[in-house]
Amino acid sequence: MHKIFYPDSVAVIGVSEQPDNLAANIIYNMLEFGYSGHIHAVGLRSGVAHGIPILTSVDCLPDGVDLAVILTPAVTVPALMEACGRKGIRRAVIESGGFAEFSEAGRRLEEQVSQAARRWDMRFVGPNCISVVNMENGLCLPFPRLDRRAAKRGPVSVLAQSGGVSITYLLMLSEVGLGVNKVVSIGNKADLDEVDYLKYFLDDPGTEIICLYLESIEEGRRLIELAASSPKPVIVHKANTAQASAQIAFSHTAALANDDRIVSAALRQANVARAASFDDAMALAQGFALPPVRGGDLIVVSRSGGHAVIAADVVEARGFRLTPIPDDFLAEVRTMFRADVIALANPLDLGVIFDFDLYGQIVEECLRALHPDALLLVHTFSTGPESEMSRRLARRVRELSQTLGNTMALCAFAQREDVESLKPEAGPMVFTEIEAAVRALAASRDRHRRSARLLPLPSAPAQRPHEVEAVLAHAGVLTTDLALGLCGIFDIPSAEWAVVEDVESARVAASMIGYPVALKVLSPDVLHKSDVGGVVLGIEGAEALQAEWAALLARVEQRVPGARIGGVLVQQMLAGGCEVILGGKRDPSFGPVVMFGLGGVYVEVFEDVAFRLAPLTREDAEEMIAEVRGSRLLRGVRGEPPLDVEAVTAALMALSRLLAECPEVMEVDVNPLLVFEHGVAAVDARVIVRGQKT
Amino acid sequence: MHKIFYPDSVAVIGVSEQPDNLAANIIYNMLEFGYSGHIHAVGLRSGVAHGIPILTSVDCLPDGVDLAVILTPAVTVPALMEACGRKGIRRAVIESGGFAEFSEAGRRLEEQVSQAARRWDMRFVGPNCISVVNMENGLCLPFPRLDRRAAKRGPVSVLAQSGGVSITYLLMLSEVGLGVNKVVSIGNKADLDEVDYLKYFLDDPGTEIICLYLESIEEGRRLIELAASSPKPVIVHKANTAQASAQIAFSHTAALANDDRIVSAALRQANVARAASFDDAMALAQGFALPPVRGGDLIVVSRSGGHAVIAADVVEARGFRLTPIPDDFLAEVRTMFRADVIALANPLDLGVIFDFDLYGQIVEECLRALHPDALLLVHTFSTGPESEMSRRLARRVRELSQTLGNTMALCAFAQREDVESLKPEAGPMVFTEIEAAVRALAASRDRHRRSARLLPLPSAPAQRPHEVEAVLAHAGVLTTDLALGLCGIFDIPSAEWAVVEDVESARVAASMIGYPVALKVLSPDVLHKSDVGGVVLGIEGAEALQAEWAALLARVEQRVPGARIGGVLVQQMLAGGCEVILGGKRDPSFGPVVMFGLGGVYVEVFEDVAFRLAPLTREDAEEMIAEVRGSRLLRGVRGEPPLDVEAVTAALMALSRLLAECPEVMEVDVNPLLVFEHGVAAVDARVIVRGQKT
Repeated sequence: MHKIFYPDSVAVIGVSEQPDNLAANIIYNMLEFGYSGHIHAVGLRSGVAHGIPILTSVDCLPDGVDLAVILTPAVTVPALMEACGRKGIRRAVIESGGFAEFSEAGRRLEEQVSQAARRWDMRFVGPNCISVVNMENGLCLPFPRLDRRAAKRGPVSVLAQSGGVSITYLLMLSEVGLGVNKVVSIGNKADLDEVDYLKYFLDDPGTEIICLYLESIEEGRRLIELAASSPKPVIVHKANTAQASAQIAFSHTAALANDDRIVSAALRQANVARAASFDDAMALAQGFALPPVRGGDLIVVSRSGGHAVIAADVVEARGFRLTPIPDDFLAEVRTMFRADVIALANPLDLGVIFDFDLYGQIVEECLRALHPDALLLVHTFSTGPESEMSRRLARRVRELSQTLGNTMALCAFAQREDVESLKPEAGPMVFTEIEAAVRALAASRDRHRRSARLLPLPSAPAQRPHEVEAVLAHAGVLTTDLALGLCGIFDIPSAEWAVVEDVESARVAASMIGYPVALKVLSPDVLHKSDVGGVVLGIEGAEALQAEWAALLARVEQRVPGARIGGVLVQQMLAGGCEVILGGKRDPSFGPVVMFGLGGVYVEVFEDVAFRLAPLTREDAEEMIAEVRGSRLLRGVRGEPPLDVEAVTAALMALSRLLAECPEVMEVDVNPLLVFEHGVAAVDARVIVRGQKT
Repeated sequence: MHKIFYPDSVAVIGVSEQPDNLAANIIYNMLEFGYSGHIHAVGLRSGVAHGIPILTSVDCLPDGVDLAVILTPAVTVPALMEACGRKGIRRAVIESGGFAEFSEAGRRLEEQVSQAARRWDMRFVGPNCISVVNMENGLCLPFPRLDRRAAKRGPVSVLAQSGGVSITYLLMLSEVGLGVNKVVSIGNKADLDEVDYLKYFLDDPGTEIICLYLESIEEGRRLIELAASSPKPVIVHKANTAQASAQIAFSHTAALANDDRIVSAALRQANVARAASFDDAMALAQGFALPPVRGGDLIVVSRSGGHAVIAADVVEARGFRLTPIPDDFLAEVRTMFRADVIALANPLDLGVIFDFDLYGQIVEECLRALHPDALLLVHTFSTGPESEMSRRLARRVRELSQTLGNTMALCAFAQREDVESLKPEAGPMVFTEIEAAVRALAASRDRHRRSARLLPLPSAPAQRPHEVEAVLAHAGVLTTDLALGLCGIFDIPSAEWAVVEDVESARVAASMIGYPVALKVLSPDVLHKSDVGGVVLGIEGAEALQAEWAALLARVEQRVPGARIGGVLVQQMLAGGCEVILGGKRDPSFGPVVMFGLGGVYVEVFEDVAFRLAPLTREDAEEMIAEVRGSRLLRGVRGEPPLDVEAVTAALMALSRLLAECPEVMEVDVNPLLVFEHGVAAVDARVIVRGQKT
């Protein structure tokens, strides 16, 4: 991978002297960005492009070229890869489109490209991408011409599943004063994919912050595990969340849609910040470029009372606390004032002070005396002398941040060029919207308050309890006794039950369990036992049991003639309790996933559910429960006693272990799990095991 | 008011030759902005400021000055107002701070200013404001120096309850290419307030879009009625929503916090767009400057597939439908292409076309053939020749919009100066974030799909049913019979009930109503009848009634000795039904307000409630019910039959009439109202009538 970003020599293939030749733009860009290695050009006809002679064949290249950049029609690419391989080139960037994203024929071409690469042990970027930029060595391979002045070298590396978006990130990160280190547009990721690039960026010394734009995540689990292990801040901008965009994303880079709720949950577990838009990604990147915000105490200093009011709204919405300002501090600040017409508080409204040097002094006082976790300076100024004073203030604020180690954001409202002129002074501290500034500080706070806590999947499932094997010998939808039994093995309690074969045993079982009881038919041929009359609830005594037993078997035989009956479950009927639902499934990209919600209408009407990747830590399970709004019902509302949330937490963690340790289990639902003041009990469970039968 | 924005002559008071004199900046600004009238200066010492001689007294001014602008210490202002009045000046802008926003002494000064104004029949802006700008005549009264180049004349007038914010709006509206017409910072609004300015802007021919920044709304009802009557789009940016900002807003412009849920509901009823931030306000203003979006069909054309994916996400989230593109249209578009490597759909991904003139052609084809309600062109380009082509494209798009009348937004991703260069070509159509562009189109669609529908409050409550008078003769908390009776007068049905004085009558009543029944004590001395054991539910027969009657009266006498008993309510117990809550209160700013929510835990746990100003139109009532997520339960979930939503709608409208026609009613709660398959019934009601007793 290193040679893709740091090649000593590059051959651009597809170059001509035509003024609209795109491959020639790649040469232009490398010259413009001052690429330090050798540049070669290959094309159909000989000639010269930007001073570089065009060779008419890959074979004419000197030996030892590190990287080929291919931008020719798709049909020519497999042969060119072959030629590069023969020539000893081991790295390629394929910018051409017309592959799997376009048609079935394109998909076959892409397969041929991959075969050629495998044959020659080559690794490649793309196809269908805009490619690679490295600001450290001037490697600049995009085919649209770029302006060196619009690209700033900085700490952020970008991985984008869209060429256009990769360029937007390059420009925007430069514009906000942060700058980029490396950019790669990954295209169809036929060979190298997001996991490979992320791994590289994690090790790359030039990369301090990583920003991923993704439209599909195929190796979700690996990506998330990698991100969770990252000491560098990772930002993910995941698009393709809507029904409508699924189609364009597919034709665009052959992407499939993910379940967005699972994506969000996984990113949360990996302590990765999710960007909702370009602007949001900029705010996050700026936030991560500042010294970490280690707590929730914030001071707002503002020149305008109105801006202070807006800031206070936003600060509260983002969960910060405005540090109370002690009276003696205010008394001291007042002595610096030219006029005494503003009531002092936090936000500190400095509207009556016209000497901005005093602002710096007050900010310093605030930091030294009050030790906030962050300080937001909202500044507004006019052009001319105020602008010059404001640049001095920006410089002062940056110096204070450096010497005192405090986190500060400077949100500036002024004419655009005056705001721009602050960026060279205070770099990524400068914001142009209060929301963005507070978002940045909040993202930093959240990142440092939490930590990634993704438990690894057990690699050897053999450690699981041996009783599991007998249950998982069955495939398809398990009967209720097996499903509840599997839950029981993993310590998810259920309402007491027994399997019986005849009515006599049923009566014995019921009397041991205690009435009322329920009867549930067990049959591999009955998928939905309620639907065929296979469930009777609330049987109050032995006489009723006798009658219901016969009626139940008759109904099942009538509705599913010849159904094999594996017995009947006699189960204790529990009174009271609050219904919750635990669920689990295997996501094709992210692997085992756990779901939690309240039973009844809450899941359906309020879509009030939480997801996490399994296995869960205790913190995850607690967070899932807290995330579901309706779970306040578990904590006791309207004077009712609080229920056993601890037991729910344990059951969730148990279910997550079940999924993690039993890769054969495709789906599991415990619905409902009843929650009591003391303990929980599963009343019904459904488990699907991988296999032929369904 | 006209003379405030269009004075023929202005006297600035507080001017000196000192370089940091703020009043002199006002003169500077008027000269910079080319003010067309006469400028006079008044100060303590004679001299010259920016070429204008400084007179040492108001008395030295010529007669007939239209407007005084005062920027002197607060203590001097009452006398100066007096002097202005004597001199015949009838309009003033008081920019000085140090009044009610600062201290009790300041509040008294403000009162003196108002008295002087009343004495001389003067109207004034402020105090404590940055003041007035009129781009039509160059009137530019803010005391910070402004740069004429940073201010663009345009269609938007701004009213801001913060001087700093008013300047931010001026700069931002200019920067996005829209421009402002008039700006006023209203300060403490001791005389002229938001209602006055809004009224003026509604009539002002130069104002096409109105933008209000407010921190407190004191005359909410008047403001909303006025906004609802406006044919011009109105945008409200309401800050001061957080606990923390309430304090700074108060010290800042003497503002009190409003109930934000009521503010949002009222703005919705008036069809006013609420801006969440400066950026959001810009998007809204841009949206309203475009031709109206009359439906939900949208076409996205994009150069980059990634931008198209993001756009599709945003478009779906904002409720637009991507117009399906017929195959023959695609076939036609393909013939324009240089290469055939992109699958065509909506979004239309034009990544392979490098001639932007073709983009214009394709956009035109889309508009002419497919008639979308709006078209979003997401464009990305490099500097140099592509930038020049993009300017041509922007021009073309603007022309198309003008000739065909279509609504289009152009979202551009490029180097900043290249994006800037599009604004002169396509003005307010240019956006720099996809979210902002789609937000703008959605706001326009919503404005034109809805209409303001605020019913007036009845001015003569005498039209109400005469039975009301007997009920409202009581003050304080009404007993349940009176409360249910009042509901009944307004056609809110309740579970059948009768008031009885002795147990014999209770038995007669119960047998007529039919068992089971409830007993509820009626006493002006019992505010919470359940708390004192004054309610018995589920009485199944005459014997139980007899026993419970005695027990109930004994309990009440024990807990509230000497309580006056006004009888006992015998009420039918209804089985089943879904509980909802109707509520109403009188907001100090917005007047009568109605609330709707589902009973039980939904209101408490999910805060799932809707508010509207009374009286309600049918549409409002229906919208309130739809807004409450839990009301899906009324429509039948899990195979249950749908309940009588129509009857709930009628009850809500009835409650709103009750509030509107009975200004004596301070609070009313119907809790619960039971909803059945056919009909609704109030089970309990609580009404508070204005008066001495509570």
